[in-house]
Amino acid sequence: MGKVSVDISMSLDGFSAGPDDGFGQGLGVGGERLHSWLFGGDWSYGDEAGSAAGVDREVLDEIFTASGAHIVGRRMFDVVEGWGYQNPFQAPCFVLTHRVDDELRALAPTFTFVTDGIESALRQARAVAGDKDVSIGGGANVAQQFLRAGLVEELNLHLAPVFLGTGKRLFENLTSAPFTLKQDRVLVSPLATHLRYVVTPQAQSRQTS
Amino acid sequence: MGKVSVDISMSLDGFSAGPDDGFGQGLGVGGERLHSWLFGGDWSYGDEAGSAAGVDREVLDEIFTASGAHIVGRRMFDVVEGWGYQNPFQAPCFVLTHRVDDELRALAPTFTFVTDGIESALRQARAVAGDKDVSIGGGANVAQQFLRAGLVEELNLHLAPVFLGTGKRLFENLTSAPFTLKQDRVLVSPLATHLRYVVTPQAQSRQTS
Repeated sequence: MGKVSVDISMSLDGFSAGPDDGFGQGLGVGGERLHSWLFGGDWSYGDEAGSAAGVDREVLDEIFTASGAHIVGRRMFDVVEGWGYQNPFQAPCFVLTHRVDDELRALAPTFTFVTDGIESALRQARAVAGDKDVSIGGGANVAQQFLRAGLVEELNLHLAPVFLGTGKRLFENLTSAPFTLKQDRVLVSPLATHLRYVVTPQAQSRQTS
Repeated sequence: MGKVSVDISMSLDGFSAGPDDGFGQGLGVGGERLHSWLFGGDWSYGDEAGSAAGVDREVLDEIFTASGAHIVGRRMFDVVEGWGYQNPFQAPCFVLTHRVDDELRALAPTFTFVTDGIESALRQARAVAGDKDVSIGGGANVAQQFLRAGLVEELNLHLAPVFLGTGKRLFENLTSAPFTLKQDRVLVSPLATHLRYVVTPQAQSRQTS
């Protein structure tokens, strides 16, 4: 069985989205700078984006290669306008949501919408991932839910050299975070520091299956 | 003239001190883990601390060698109980405070207490630092004041593989942060990722002398 990892970009001041993120506004004011490493440099919504290069490309390819399934939150799905309703990953993508209807399912047949919580999403993701990893892509709230539940085994943070000042903090609502971190690999490009941590649940049994 | 740098340790979730930091309680609950890199591993208040080793030692020596003066806040000074009223650095240390009396000055003659704000502290620090750097050691509030004022040229973050959950956030109250960051050197030990950023004030003239 593969591992469960969180893969998410964060500003140096701890935000995984800028202010006023939402439908049509992507990751909010300045938020696109969190993803410069994905696009080979500065980019803007609406422009044709470049491609990740060098170390950033290696990291991105590694995520795609290692992941047998992806889990994202509905808000993240909406923020990027459903990626044009085409799964952008190279493996099945599960979208956690409280609400889904036949219209959305018809619009976005390459996604699986899960309405009964993170453990169900993880169970379904694991079933299709087989020996590969399950990658949790965000947003902040979904990452926090998985971390709080002690379900995360690896944390991959892509730390952008950016101050957003306000927005969505990736690490909050985790005051009783029942895990320890062990520093693992660090890779560096001019556009991001790619930090990897091994996450070990503390003093509680993991319930992941 | 040397540069003005901020040198401060931060948890992965963005705290530079744990909850309930204060006199006799150091950096608060769990806060000592932020400084494991300074002491070669886990340590506790009251125990004899070990020494930084390897990459951590190099980073620490570099700070001491490069710095011709240090600036810290009064709260930080109090939290560590004035380092036993002996300046722990190898260069003069300026303590920003709103209140100082003859008794404290007599107790702590190896420190200089500055009561008229960050620009005065920086001017005095620069005067003694000569060609060397001025290092701002924290706490969070003092670092924020210097960053907001556009007076910081280099940011050295020692990122500990630790979740504190609550405490003092290093990067808040910086919503209008008028600067950009450029990723510089990254050094890695098992106890910390030492991140360096070049800070460039944005669209405002710097007033640093």
